[in-house]
Parts: sequence; structure tokens; C-alpha cells
Amino acid sequence: MPAAMEKEPLLQLRVFDLNCWAIRYLSKLRQERVQMIADTLSQESYDLVLLQEVWSEMDYCTLKQRLSACYPSSHYFRSGVIGSGLCVFSRYPILDTFLYQYSLNGYPYMLQHGDWFCGKSVGLLVLKIQEIVFNIYVTHLHAEYCREKDAYLPHRVVQAWELGQFVQHTSKAADVVLLGGDLNMHPEDVGIRLLRSWTGLRDSFTDAERFEGCEDGCTLVPDNCFTDKKELQPFPLGIRIDYILYKGQSNFAVKCDRLVTTTGKAPGKSIPYSDHEAVIATLYVRRHGEANALNSNTVDPALVDIMKEARTEVRVGLHAAQRQRYSSGRMAILALLLLLLQAMMGLSSLVGWASPQPFPKFSFSVLGSLAVLVLLVSGVLHIFHAIEVKVLQGTEDQMRLALQSLQDQLSAK
Amino acid sequence: MPAAMEKEPLLQLRVFDLNCWAIRYLSKLRQERVQMIADTLSQESYDLVLLQEVWSEMDYCTLKQRLSACYPSSHYFRSGVIGSGLCVFSRYPILDTFLYQYSLNGYPYMLQHGDWFCGKSVGLLVLKIQEIVFNIYVTHLHAEYCREKDAYLPHRVVQAWELGQFVQHTSKAADVVLLGGDLNMHPEDVGIRLLRSWTGLRDSFTDAERFEGCEDGCTLVPDNCFTDKKELQPFPLGIRIDYILYKGQSNFAVKCDRLVTTTGKAPGKSIPYSDHEAVIATLYVRRHGEANALNSNTVDPALVDIMKEARTEVRVGLHAAQRQRYSSGRMAILALLLLLLQAMMGLSSLVGWASPQPFPKFSFSVLGSLAVLVLLVSGVLHIFHAIEVKVLQGTEDQMRLALQSLQDQLSAK
Repeated sequence: MPAAMEKEPLLQLRVFDLNCWAIRYLSKLRQERVQMIADTLSQESYDLVLLQEVWSEMDYCTLKQRLSACYPSSHYFRSGVIGSGLCVFSRYPILDTFLYQYSLNGYPYMLQHGDWFCGKSVGLLVLKIQEIVFNIYVTHLHAEYCREKDAYLPHRVVQAWELGQFVQHTSKAADVVLLGGDLNMHPEDVGIRLLRSWTGLRDSFTDAERFEGCEDGCTLVPDNCFTDKKELQPFPLGIRIDYILYKGQSNFAVKCDRLVTTTGKAPGKSIPYSDHEAVIATLYVRRHGEANALNSNTVDPALVDIMKEARTEVRVGLHAAQRQRYSSGRMAILALLLLLLQAMMGLSSLVGWASPQPFPKFSFSVLGSLAVLVLLVSGVLHIFHAIEVKVLQGTEDQMRLALQSLQDQLSAK
Repeated sequence: MPAAMEKEPLLQLRVFDLNCWAIRYLSKLRQERVQMIADTLSQESYDLVLLQEVWSEMDYCTLKQRLSACYPSSHYFRSGVIGSGLCVFSRYPILDTFLYQYSLNGYPYMLQHGDWFCGKSVGLLVLKIQEIVFNIYVTHLHAEYCREKDAYLPHRVVQAWELGQFVQHTSKAADVVLLGGDLNMHPEDVGIRLLRSWTGLRDSFTDAERFEGCEDGCTLVPDNCFTDKKELQPFPLGIRIDYILYKGQSNFAVKCDRLVTTTGKAPGKSIPYSDHEAVIATLYVRRHGEANALNSNTVDPALVDIMKEARTEVRVGLHAAQRQRYSSGRMAILALLLLLLQAMMGLSSLVGWASPQPFPKFSFSVLGSLAVLVLLVSGVLHIFHAIEVKVLQGTEDQMRLALQSLQDQLSAK
């Protein structure tokens, strides 16, 4: 720790992060839990509250109403069909907001997963506290439904890359960068390694001076009565997928003094706030004597390997998307050919060129309707997978360029 | 002009911007024109070339191959089903790229307009020339098909707002900001006034010391053999919708020394490069003695009125989108009810509760297929308009917050 860090902190910031699991009609004890969350937030009066999975604007309004005294500023980020689920409550005025919706986010036809409908995004807030500019990011990435055969891994890697790029490009004027949310990635996953080494963000769990909470900082634990025990079977301690990351820039340094997670139950209550544990960080912001060396001069050589690994995942996704684009296109063409054939047969029997209609009218019409249905569905699928291919190609290309830039920088040293 | 501007320029930058109208199978003389564009770009060797409507990657590859000697760096931005159509050629190495796809961009069912399929976006490039950091933006907004009854106006206003926000949030570390592209807005339109006053970008046409080209700087003119004369009837001189905008930041000032447009024909040729005229700017970058006062201290009071006007347009769009969401939802429910009724009738006649099937089998099956079709189509439409409503609500909310911030700043003066 540099000597300058030992000085009196300029500012203490207490941040509360929670995936609230507030899905109307589906989440258990939703209203009770929202009230519990409101209770604890007003009692504890944090500086900043970052929430995910507040899917209903009604729940946001309930919270807003209950919290207006302690948190005069708040924002709900809208995107997708349902909403991004992201909202923020702040003790300090929010000066500006901006939303970036990830280019890929699952498939609309995977109704049972539903991620596509949420329009997963990263929300940016700009705050100024004691003349220090804070860029606060809140996000929620695509869920992982099956770790062994994770069909969404390329999408999540693209999201992690876009998140990193968004943070890098939008945070240049910030003194402090803070990112909180449910990243749906274990600490060793390629996406989070990419995000952290690309942006230089530090993990409050590994950097905290003091930690209290679930072992290994896990935020999805078997002790929580709402978690799916079967899903967590390979991880007896649970998994850590909710993070608070941060970095200081220009003349500022940030330190995590204390990190706390809830441990399967809300303090003093019989049920937890959510199926996820809350993550609560106490950060100290200090002023440096000198400006930090900007990231451009401190390239981490490990980043090259991480980037290559991420690029491989994107390529795997690209091949799958190309296959799906091809097969849906072929299906659409077959349906179109069938329809044309039927139309020709219908016409020719109408004008009397051929023998009277060889098929019964009923089967003929059912076949026709089926062909129209298949044409419509496979056409839409083809368009969807064509977009997916474009995004994956674009990301691969961006990564290639970034990798080249990195290697140039490293070899110039 | 401040005295510091009179000093010798640090850097001259020649920028070429063109909407290439290169749609495969549809645009006239596409291949000849692409070759002509390549010829002129290699002869003139500009510093920076910003192209739009290069829809086919084949055309990009042709250009890249032809231009690799003069422009060693290039980038094609991929998005949507077809691609964003945006590409850039640069004499200087491109250090980083980033793409932001606009949240709203027309309707997928407006096949004849096709904008939705292009995934209209803004692409960002970062260049460093003589240690000066350039943020270059290239974009193409939703087309205007009918000025009197412009159904896409709210979408274009949202795009202009997002473009402004994207530029503001990503350009903080840049010394020079440059934006080129087909904005599909006349100079007096609310979207461009919002973009310019929000970002502080200056218009190279109004600021140029010398101008040569079409009267009023028009870029879509009746003299061009590819333009639709009927569309341009209300504008005998043509319209100006292609722009090069710029600003200097920190210690740098930018001046447009000369602006040129083509005038309906490519110089020395019998046909034009495209249906749009090319815009060519010669910019000078100079170093200031002192850092510019950042925009935060120089709020334009007119911005409040512009913002209110833009917000009204967004609200108009919101009401239309809510109506469409409602009517498509109602249609889906009606189709579902019809299907349920048919299923019940079918079942009851099967188990013998009712008299035998009262409708002929054929009509029954046609009716059923129609109901399925209507359910599918109106369901997809409902989802689409629900997303539209969310984005418009989100934009309105962001604008409200920005307006409040502005008014606070103005009243604090």
C-alpha cells in the first residue's frame, strides 16, 4: 500500500448490493421480502444501494416511497419487454444516467429461461460527492442454467466484454469507478477475468481488510431456503456470483475496509431478503499525492492469454450460431417450396389443367397452414440467428483489434 | 476567435464523409460507384474516411483491398441482420473501437423501409495522432420517409438523444471529438439541435472559413441523377442531412478551414458517387494556452427549450406505442379465446357431449389455422411494442433528469 493511502480517508462510502429475486407471481414471499429490504435500507442508511431483479415497477415505487427520506435520489433502468430489473437508490444526487443494453442476451424462444425478455443491460450513474466524480455501474448478466453444458457462455462472454468496454470508454473522467451486480460468473470464469484485467477493477472480496459472511464470499448458498439445492450440489459451500468491484483513478485511491454478506437469512429475521445474499462493502476514498499512472502504461501480460481464451469462446458461439442460422434458413426455404407446390397444385386443379384435387381438402388445408407456420417461425429464427452471427463476428473482430493493440504495447516495452 | 487560435496549426486533418448507397441488387451502378469511390480515395489520400450504407461486406473488402496502401487501418461495424453499413478507413492506426446500437430503430414489419434490419448504430474509433487523442464517431440514423407525417420522428429523436449521450459519456478523455454521418435530419430539426447543444459539437458547414459545393451545403440534391425528384419537390435546392461535426477539448481547439461537397456528379465523371453528396472537411487542430472551460460550466439556456421540445416528441411516440401495444395485445387475446372456443367445441363433439361437429371440417380447420396465425403475429407485435414503450419511457425519464440537472445548474448561476 502506498504511503499516501495511510492518510486520513477523504470519504467513506457504504454500498449495498442485492439481487432481489422479485418476480411477480413467481418469487416466493415477494412482498414481504420487498418490505424487509425497505426496512433494512432505511435503518442502515447506506450511501448507495444497487439492486437487481426488481422486475416490477410497482416494487420499485414501493421502495422509492419507503426510502425517499434516506435516499432522496433514485433511478429505475427500463429496457427489454419486462424491464432491466436494475435500480439504484442514492443518498447523493444522481447527475446523469445512461443505459447500455447488451447486444446478445439469450434466445426469445427459450421462454423457460426468460433472460431475453429482460433486455439485460448495464446502467451508469454519475454522482459527485465532495467534488469527487463517481461513475457507478449496476448490471446483471445472463444466467447460467447448466454449468457442464452452458449454451449461453458465448453470450455471457460477449456481455462481459461489452461491459468492460462500456466501463473503459465511459469512465475516463471519473475519479472513482464502482461496479456492482449479479455477474452470473464464478470468480475463476473467463468472463470475469477478462472484465477485471481489461478494466483494472479490483474485487472487494479479495481486497477487503475485514470480511464477515458466507465462506469464500459466496452469494448463492445452500443455507438460503430459497436456493435450488440440486443446482448447488457440486458446490457444497455455494457459489460467488454477486460482486462489488472498484478502482480509483486520477488522484484518487479506493480501499475496501470491510465486506459483509448476509448468511442465508436476513439479520434478525426468519427468512432471507432474496435467494441471493446481499453484499455490503465499506469503501474508503483517499487522495493521492500524484496522479495514478493510467492503465495504458500498465498492461497485464496475462491479459493476452485471457483475451485469447475469451475469443475462443466467442468463436465456439459463432460456429453454433452459424449452424442455427443455416438450418433455420433451410427450413424456411423448404416450407416456402412446399407452399409454392401447393399453390401450383391448387391453381392447376382450379383451372382444370390437372385431374381434380388429388388430396382431400382438409389435409390439403392443414398441410398449407403448417407450411405457413413453419415458414413464419423459421423465418423469424433465421433473422434472429443472423443478428447473433453479426454480433459474435463483430465482437471477435473487436477482440482481435484489442489483442493486437495489447501485443504492440507489450512488445514496445 | 481567441488569439491562441491564430498560431500555426499543430495538425491538419482532411476528412471525407459519404453515404455510399451500396445496397446489393437494389442500388444502381453499385459496383462502378464503389470502384469510383476507391479511385478518388486513393488519389486524394485523406486522413480519415467515414462511410455509411456499405451494406455488403464484399464491398467493404473491395474497398479495403484497394485502399490498403493509403489507409493502412480500417474497421467495419457489424450489427443488425444486414450490418450497420458503417465503415472507416484511416491513415493512422485505430487503437480501439466500440459500437452502440440504438435502442429504437423502426419496425421489423415495415419491410419496405428496412431500417430495422440494419441495426442502426454509432461506431466509435479512438485514434492518437501526434499524441492528440481523437474520438471519431460515425453514424447513420433512421431515414425520414414522409416529412409531413413522420411516424419515425420519435425514434429518430431517441437516436439523436442516445447519440448525444454516447458522445458525452465516451469522449471525456478525448482532445478532439469528430462526428460524421448521415443524420437524416435537416439542420433546423429538433434532433440535431438537441445533439449539438447537448454535446457542444460545432457544424463544419456553418463554421467553415471557406465553402464550395451545393447551395446551403445540401447533400441530397435534385441535380443528382440518383435522387428521388418527387421527394425533393418541396426543397428546390435539396436538403442537408449529412454532417461533419467537431469540437476541441482540454487544451485543443479545432477549426474548419474548408468544407467541400460534391455537386450532383463526381468530379470529372458522368455519374455521382452515390445518391448523397460527399462532404469533405479540412480541419485544423491547434493547442490552446489554457484548458477549455468544460461544458459543465457553459450551459446553453436554449437547451432547456430544445430538451422540452424533444421530450414532447418522445411523449407523442410513447402514446402511439402504448396504443399499438394495447391493440396488438387485445388481438392476441381474441385469437386465443377463439382457439380455446374451437378446442372446446372440438373436444365436446369428440367425447359426444354435443351434437356432431356443427361446422364443416374444412372451415373449422381454416378458422383454427387463422387464429393460430393471428395469435403468433399479434403476440410478436405485442412484445415488440412493449419494448418500444419501455425504451420511450426510459428516454423520457432520462430527459426529465437531464432537464432537472440543467435547470439546477442555470438557477445556481
